[in-house]
Amino acid sequence: MGRLSCEVVAVGTELLLGQIVDTNSSWIGEQLALAGVDSYYQTKVGDNPDRIKRVLEQALDRSDFVIVCGGLGPTQDDLTRDVIAEVMGAELVTDEGLVERISAIFGGRNHPMPSNNLRQALVPVGAEVLSVMPGTAPGLKAVIHGKTLYAVPGVPWEMKQMVFEDILPNIRAKAGITSIIRSKTLRTWGESESGLAEKLAGEIERLDREGGATIAFLASGIEGLKVRITVKGDSESEVESILNSEAEIVSSILGDEIIFSFDDQTIEAVILGLCRERNLTLGVAESLTGGLIGSRITSIPGSSDVFKGSIVAYSGDVKRTVLGVPDIPAVSQEAVEAMVAGACSVLHADIAAAVTGEAGPNPVEEEVGRVWMATSVGGVVQSNSVKWPFDRERIRQFTTITVLNTLRLRLEKET
Amino acid sequence: MGRLSCEVVAVGTELLLGQIVDTNSSWIGEQLALAGVDSYYQTKVGDNPDRIKRVLEQALDRSDFVIVCGGLGPTQDDLTRDVIAEVMGAELVTDEGLVERISAIFGGRNHPMPSNNLRQALVPVGAEVLSVMPGTAPGLKAVIHGKTLYAVPGVPWEMKQMVFEDILPNIRAKAGITSIIRSKTLRTWGESESGLAEKLAGEIERLDREGGATIAFLASGIEGLKVRITVKGDSESEVESILNSEAEIVSSILGDEIIFSFDDQTIEAVILGLCRERNLTLGVAESLTGGLIGSRITSIPGSSDVFKGSIVAYSGDVKRTVLGVPDIPAVSQEAVEAMVAGACSVLHADIAAAVTGEAGPNPVEEEVGRVWMATSVGGVVQSNSVKWPFDRERIRQFTTITVLNTLRLRLEKET
Repeated sequence: MGRLSCEVVAVGTELLLGQIVDTNSSWIGEQLALAGVDSYYQTKVGDNPDRIKRVLEQALDRSDFVIVCGGLGPTQDDLTRDVIAEVMGAELVTDEGLVERISAIFGGRNHPMPSNNLRQALVPVGAEVLSVMPGTAPGLKAVIHGKTLYAVPGVPWEMKQMVFEDILPNIRAKAGITSIIRSKTLRTWGESESGLAEKLAGEIERLDREGGATIAFLASGIEGLKVRITVKGDSESEVESILNSEAEIVSSILGDEIIFSFDDQTIEAVILGLCRERNLTLGVAESLTGGLIGSRITSIPGSSDVFKGSIVAYSGDVKRTVLGVPDIPAVSQEAVEAMVAGACSVLHADIAAAVTGEAGPNPVEEEVGRVWMATSVGGVVQSNSVKWPFDRERIRQFTTITVLNTLRLRLEKET
Repeated sequence: MGRLSCEVVAVGTELLLGQIVDTNSSWIGEQLALAGVDSYYQTKVGDNPDRIKRVLEQALDRSDFVIVCGGLGPTQDDLTRDVIAEVMGAELVTDEGLVERISAIFGGRNHPMPSNNLRQALVPVGAEVLSVMPGTAPGLKAVIHGKTLYAVPGVPWEMKQMVFEDILPNIRAKAGITSIIRSKTLRTWGESESGLAEKLAGEIERLDREGGATIAFLASGIEGLKVRITVKGDSESEVESILNSEAEIVSSILGDEIIFSFDDQTIEAVILGLCRERNLTLGVAESLTGGLIGSRITSIPGSSDVFKGSIVAYSGDVKRTVLGVPDIPAVSQEAVEAMVAGACSVLHADIAAAVTGEAGPNPVEEEVGRVWMATSVGGVVQSNSVKWPFDRERIRQFTTITVLNTLRLRLEKET
């Protein structure tokens, strides 16, 4: 038996019109890869029965499994059920068990059930209802000419639960896949993608030759530059052990300066953890980022036990009156050092980070992209400057992750 | 001649694996719709020459125009050029004009050109190079069995410029499309999607009957709830006039309280504009949003002439010492009113907004979702409270747009 493959079909005119980006197919594709299932095609088709039918027939012809996503809702536009019945050459009949389940959901919400929802209880004769049903739209499964078709609703949380708990285990069992695939993501900052690739070239070549793991890079803006190690194996314990030893090899090559987390944590989460361990409070003073640094830190639940706050000093007089910055050019070493000292004292914070710079597009004092950053740890202020060749949004994002990474390194070394 | 259609093929194994979401196809789909071109299918296929070939042949069979996106880079994985030559039954030859253009780009950047980039100068005999070429990857155009195939690189900004300036005008001319489609997006806040639909139900029914325009809703989180009016017509002036009169009808039904912009502007941009007109400076004091309000405002270029800054007072002592909030519960009317007054005086701002609340997941003082908001305009402080039934991120986002919309209404009415 050759390797079996699965393809994904997304149904919905709104997907073709670009009103909604089809993130469902991408997520299913990722899950198939992690489940060890090959996948060669993904198709989007509008709410047209003839075209949906042609796409499904072709998919069943060239792949062993097909997951069709969307078009299972209660309205007349939801055609997937009808088309599957046609492809099967079967009638649609009302499934009384489903009527009860759907009615119970509406009863449980104290809402009368719209009669439209009864459409969702129609099942082609010979098809099965998926046992996992998180919402009011049932998933379907049908074997057609020896191939298996799964239909799931387009609502992401309903779709994901069905795929994860029902469809993937089913495909793996039918395809005889017993191996498992796991990834570990190391996050880095301070080295370009090509720089990382160069440092890891020898190890990547060794893996190409000897197998065991694969390494991939993913630039992720303010989230850092990710290094993903992927391992395929027969048992959870085997895969875990290979992943961990490969992560050690990669980290010994790249060094801890570059790697800020081994478990896909954000830089903000890492800093909050370091502060918590050391019982330190954190303050921020920001100009060009305008609140982005504070916003990122506070996006993490529980940040309030470490984070005191941020002085967003966008105007010169706020820098002077609130932070005590002297009357000097705002984008300068002296200014950023005064800002970080001001953040510590005004916010009563043990450590602090500060940034000032020109985000563009119209520079006020300095060339666009010029940024000064400072950190204060143990009362010692350090500062440095970067000239970013980017647009406004990336200048703000890269400044945020850069100053936080500097703060991390100082916390790790000096405290 | 029936209506001609165009389909989109995206090439790249990373798209199938879900490492990258295929936003290019969505964007092209949207542009095709706006250009009046029908589009029935979109396909994603990996970097495999046989499968790319089968997908392209099928697309050329069932559609009149095909745009294939990706796989035009300089590496061995970039196979689109080769496959197109195969589909055409033509040889790939080096285009000397392209060699010069590509070399010039590298010369202009003072970098030696990697020899790989010469692959990008290969063109199938009989195909044309698109005249628009923003990067180093040339776009291609080939007529195959009477159908037209366009190939564009996967780099979004290069792709978009080629599609917009070259391919869409070309398809419209070939398909004899003279009608144009334009949309106008009104942004709203303060009414649910079903509430908007209910208010506009009569008008939507009238349009269904009489034609002229269509109305669609799009919930967009912190960007507001969008009402999109779309009109198709024969001339720019005709379409503009229908759009404007329909926008007037919609706004007379919904009212200015709900609609905060008529041209898809963000609430931040609207507020900056109102402040600029009135020569007012703006300050913010934020607790649960942690800098998000300031970050949103400063994401807009030129905000520095209005925005003074934000005091992110995440801890109670910062509320007291920096903003002068008395020693009272932090999530309360008295606290938020003291915060907004503090923002005005500390930041020397004419007007201000302030928010405090419980973003969860673990409440400190109040139930999760309880938020107090205040605005100060002309020295008059007003406040109100909301209990959001959402998760942390949505609580922060909805709080941001809600307090800014309140500020907008007061600016419009009171200043």
